[in-house]
Amino acid sequence: MASILNKPKRIIDLDVRDIRFPTSLTADGSDATHPDPDYSCVYVRLYTDDDNYVGCGLTFTIGRGNELVKHAVDSLRFLVVRRFIEDIQENMACWVNDLANESQLRWVGPEKGVIHLAMAAIVNAFWDLWGKIAKKPVWKLLSEMSPERIISLINFKYINDYLSKEEALAILKKNEPFKRERELWITKRGFPAYTTQVGWLGYDDKKLRENGRKFLRDGFTAFKMKVGSDIEDDKRRLRIIREVIGPNNKLMVDANQKWGVQEAIDWMNELAQFNIHWIEEPTSPDDVLGHLKVSQALEKHGIGVATGEMCQNRVMFKQFLQAGALQFCQIDSARMGGLNDVLAVYLMASKAGIPVCPHSGGVGLCEMVQHLQMFDYVVLSGSIENRLIEFIDHLHEHFEFPPKLGRARYFPPMDYGYSTEMKYGSIRDYEYPEGATWKRLLDKGQYRDPSLEFKKYL
Amino acid sequence: MASILNKPKRIIDLDVRDIRFPTSLTADGSDATHPDPDYSCVYVRLYTDDDNYVGCGLTFTIGRGNELVKHAVDSLRFLVVRRFIEDIQENMACWVNDLANESQLRWVGPEKGVIHLAMAAIVNAFWDLWGKIAKKPVWKLLSEMSPERIISLINFKYINDYLSKEEALAILKKNEPFKRERELWITKRGFPAYTTQVGWLGYDDKKLRENGRKFLRDGFTAFKMKVGSDIEDDKRRLRIIREVIGPNNKLMVDANQKWGVQEAIDWMNELAQFNIHWIEEPTSPDDVLGHLKVSQALEKHGIGVATGEMCQNRVMFKQFLQAGALQFCQIDSARMGGLNDVLAVYLMASKAGIPVCPHSGGVGLCEMVQHLQMFDYVVLSGSIENRLIEFIDHLHEHFEFPPKLGRARYFPPMDYGYSTEMKYGSIRDYEYPEGATWKRLLDKGQYRDPSLEFKKYL
Repeated sequence: MASILNKPKRIIDLDVRDIRFPTSLTADGSDATHPDPDYSCVYVRLYTDDDNYVGCGLTFTIGRGNELVKHAVDSLRFLVVRRFIEDIQENMACWVNDLANESQLRWVGPEKGVIHLAMAAIVNAFWDLWGKIAKKPVWKLLSEMSPERIISLINFKYINDYLSKEEALAILKKNEPFKRERELWITKRGFPAYTTQVGWLGYDDKKLRENGRKFLRDGFTAFKMKVGSDIEDDKRRLRIIREVIGPNNKLMVDANQKWGVQEAIDWMNELAQFNIHWIEEPTSPDDVLGHLKVSQALEKHGIGVATGEMCQNRVMFKQFLQAGALQFCQIDSARMGGLNDVLAVYLMASKAGIPVCPHSGGVGLCEMVQHLQMFDYVVLSGSIENRLIEFIDHLHEHFEFPPKLGRARYFPPMDYGYSTEMKYGSIRDYEYPEGATWKRLLDKGQYRDPSLEFKKYL
Repeated sequence: MASILNKPKRIIDLDVRDIRFPTSLTADGSDATHPDPDYSCVYVRLYTDDDNYVGCGLTFTIGRGNELVKHAVDSLRFLVVRRFIEDIQENMACWVNDLANESQLRWVGPEKGVIHLAMAAIVNAFWDLWGKIAKKPVWKLLSEMSPERIISLINFKYINDYLSKEEALAILKKNEPFKRERELWITKRGFPAYTTQVGWLGYDDKKLRENGRKFLRDGFTAFKMKVGSDIEDDKRRLRIIREVIGPNNKLMVDANQKWGVQEAIDWMNELAQFNIHWIEEPTSPDDVLGHLKVSQALEKHGIGVATGEMCQNRVMFKQFLQAGALQFCQIDSARMGGLNDVLAVYLMASKAGIPVCPHSGGVGLCEMVQHLQMFDYVVLSGSIENRLIEFIDHLHEHFEFPPKLGRARYFPPMDYGYSTEMKYGSIRDYEYPEGATWKRLLDKGQYRDPSLEFKKYL
């Protein structure tokens, strides 16, 4: 056991890096709205007065724009550095609110976009630090907290007309007796994953077929395809993948916001023949009422609407859940203001009886969401029915504690923290634009960044 | 008449500045959520191949965070510089969409927050340039466009389930015959203004009373008070102002997002006794369904709900209008992606029969919204019923073409462009943190910016 004397007391510095991976060069991650993503993250390290404890957190972006989030972290630095760790732990909802509602900075949000992504990286880094100090993985740290303690992490402002503190507490207390047996179950059996890697839009039919077979062999029973650019193309690709995976495995599609509301309905009426489990991001991520209309129109096909990876905050999720505008809730661990806001959404989804299937992949998202789903299973749902964790076998080599899957299931991570610590060499090589890999690509003209060429301020 | 040879052809450079005014030192602009705003703007100049034509545009913030918007303008620069002006004019909806949906940058929005504020400054600067080239104020430039041309400025994606291109065109055509007479009327009579300067939350009762009397003398018949921090305080202040302005003048209140949904209803039930015209920003700007609930609850008092200054884009406004969640539509000329998105909202509001009363004040907002309301009057509504333009007599001295008011009415601006050109001396003195005024304040310790002190990247 660590003595109390060994714990760090203060955050003494915050380091932030713009890390990018040149994934656009191979069309990995390409979809109807994002044809050339460079999977990237803003990586935050919280240094403490004890060198043994560094909190590492991140937020995910797809390349250009990462520099803005880095700058936003820098602008929030004054609310982080010199703070006492125990103070934050004791009043975390307050600190999170201070970050989200700093009296001037909030104007350029509020609680959305660049500034909220930046906050996510900081808050997530703090959770990594907390896990390391407590010598627990974050899912276990959370699972062992009392209902009252969990409630103290959440800002109920703007959501208490749907979920009050008292209701949230009652949900947690009702589940309290089952935590131990659920933990044993999930540790033994794991949480089911699905794969998105069969069908990036930039992949050809041969690669699609090969990928389908490969993931089927690996034990996957749920597969997601990118759609939305060309209806005939979509049909051909869905026919191929249905052929490969057979009639009984789950098949989801993802339009990445490509359509207007009516267009989404018309398009999905055409694709319904392929027995689609959910349509993800059919239209603007801001359109609660539009998603509701799509949900209602597709109910007859048994197709659910999934959305959330670009849902900006708990207030938007509240409305999606209130209105019944989504059937699968896809929280993003890095888009909202970090883990605390995500917890609020899990509790609201629990009240609504809507399964959470987190957005993942990217950089470091699988690493984080596995903790969240384990927490959900142990503390809230006790069920894997209709619940899946997205898995993309990509870029995990840059992390010290990558997720451990077996037969297409995530097993609870046992390393301390939030699994978001990156390897030293990866940070060094992929920092943008000065890291070794980027210098080489840019110098040799193998990669062009038009935004960078025109920039005056770095 | 200018010969065609005299027109500039290309945008050859984009200059962007972080301009701030130390308004927090006098509590000007203070409200329940923003106790210490420093009214600021990101100021963009588009230089052309003809030195006589420079497009000047801006977006408004309240201090910290302005640097992030400046960086975002820099990141968007590559979509602006070297472009042909006529190409943009002919396909403006395309260019606007390119800015809003750049394949990587959109991730850190999309169409919201820092990146969208940055786009607003650029797009607004282009309108200033267009007006200068056409030798017309922007309201007149727009008013003289054909319905088809106006439609070509707007991106209907994500809004066409509420307002189709054809419907929008029909609205414009229906109003076409009345444009000439409306222009004459509004030029002669002006557009009614209201004042927010009576009751910033940081002002004491004496200043409140004096201000009320002053603006009453100036001819104002509509007054807005900040509320939301303390109910007894609000009642005392509203009693004072009602006493000063009498029972028949309009009195609006603004809570600046201070409340949850039920809290808003309860609080306003208490304040209804003061005969309130509208309650502005009762709760989270993202909460369409919450505003609907507040609207319904306050209808019995004849209190309308007003919101929009932090409404991020046309998709959110669409939902507010679809749901009937607001009774006064307060577009912000600098928060959405510039004038084009604002036009989309004016057209949707016209369909919904909801009056637009723009958010204004700040830095340069009065300058812009006067153009928008003149356009609305001439091209869409032909009515000033329930329509008001916010006026704050503040910081106009920094602009080359400040608005002209007489007896509390805005008169149509006649200078070419969008009225957003700032004076050279103001840019020099108020650029942050290097301008002369800021250097003096910071060096003497008369102003402290904790964010700046902790920053590592400038």
